[in-house]
Amino acid sequence: MKGSEEKVSNQIVQFIRRQVNTRKADCVVIGISGGLDSAVAASLAVRALGPDKVFGLVLPDSAVTPKKDTRHAVDLVKQLKMRHKLIELKDVKRQLLLGLPRNKLAIGNLLVRLRMILLYYHASILNGLVLGTGDKSELSLGYFTKHGDGAADLLPIGNLYKTEVRAIAKYLNVPTAIINKKSSARLWKGHTAEGEIGLSYNDIDLILKKWDRKLPLEPKLKKKAVRISKLMEKNRHKQEMPITCKIMWH
Amino acid sequence: MKGSEEKVSNQIVQFIRRQVNTRKADCVVIGISGGLDSAVAASLAVRALGPDKVFGLVLPDSAVTPKKDTRHAVDLVKQLKMRHKLIELKDVKRQLLLGLPRNKLAIGNLLVRLRMILLYYHASILNGLVLGTGDKSELSLGYFTKHGDGAADLLPIGNLYKTEVRAIAKYLNVPTAIINKKSSARLWKGHTAEGEIGLSYNDIDLILKKWDRKLPLEPKLKKKAVRISKLMEKNRHKQEMPITCKIMWH
Repeated sequence: MKGSEEKVSNQIVQFIRRQVNTRKADCVVIGISGGLDSAVAASLAVRALGPDKVFGLVLPDSAVTPKKDTRHAVDLVKQLKMRHKLIELKDVKRQLLLGLPRNKLAIGNLLVRLRMILLYYHASILNGLVLGTGDKSELSLGYFTKHGDGAADLLPIGNLYKTEVRAIAKYLNVPTAIINKKSSARLWKGHTAEGEIGLSYNDIDLILKKWDRKLPLEPKLKKKAVRISKLMEKNRHKQEMPITCKIMWH
Repeated sequence: MKGSEEKVSNQIVQFIRRQVNTRKADCVVIGISGGLDSAVAASLAVRALGPDKVFGLVLPDSAVTPKKDTRHAVDLVKQLKMRHKLIELKDVKRQLLLGLPRNKLAIGNLLVRLRMILLYYHASILNGLVLGTGDKSELSLGYFTKHGDGAADLLPIGNLYKTEVRAIAKYLNVPTAIINKKSSARLWKGHTAEGEIGLSYNDIDLILKKWDRKLPLEPKLKKKAVRISKLMEKNRHKQEMPITCKIMWH
């Protein structure tokens, strides 16, 4: 297994290097949340390009982001010796919401999209590519914000299931505090991914992998599988380009 | 020709109606700029769903948006009797840029993305779909902001060239002031689309249509065609989902 993780890491490192060359970019820009996925993506980017060509943005909204996340994020960028910047989003979010009706999920997505804006802003100024941090479990389920964290130029770990990302994280010596943390998009206080989805990533990955390999599911997983199918169906539009009206002139 | 425009309008009306039904949405949300494309898309949406199910957002940044545009936009939503709201973006843009390095193009794109955030925010609250207003000329060239005006659920006029949109606008009785206005994304003061691209939409559409029909180009168009090809090549990534690293575990 150790060998596999090294192999997979190398494939991703090559991928990042090749894409940056092909697109004639000078660096990659990545949002660092203090969570697992961004830690792994950043570690691989630093291996691929060196720390000077990886720009990390730590973008907390102190109204919802746990202080611990921000600390983990800052510790990580320092450990990796990446270029980085911290921008607090609380005030700009508040200003954007002035006079608007409130809705917990909509506000959460607004915050995620503000992060996208800042990532692309810096990418534009630095001639960089935006590195998305979505993993295969989230992407398959559509468990991300359209034009938010789903918006990126490259998805280096987009073909690794959450449980695989965790294994790679250990191989890459990502700090244990990050590896052991519960996954969360932190759209609101107390938000956890598994709480919102209602399934554990162990179960999700087990089911998705069985489907991948066209293997039958044990009966006890059937109910969970139905839940996953419904989520995928509902979120399919997030994986697609906008639908364009076909035109017949005559 | 009159007959064709009616036919095409009807196709788009049907498309909007069908998509809203399929996606079980309650309305569409659309950004109204005071320009041609959004006026046509909004007019068609009102024909499709009635004015109560079309929500228009007028989102000027008074630092760069000409007052005339905002007036045209407000007049249009009133004329169409759509639900609407005007939100000024100058202050939130200024706050978002605090402490950041400045760059004209990056700031322009940031503004366009702020509009996307507000469109999706309202779509989320109203259970609506975001109607994009890109036309085929802009989309083919990639002349739009990735995850900005390029971000939408539906592109009703995405298969109409700019010159065709203008013809449909006349048929739909869009105000002449809007029809005759020069196209512009208004990313900065004095910005015009044709000025930035360096080609007129008449030439662009002439060339794109020839390519569509696999017809030869007149020699005098060759140089302009090269310019268009280069732009398309450079912007191709905007039309694609993020690139994901393939993984081989063994």
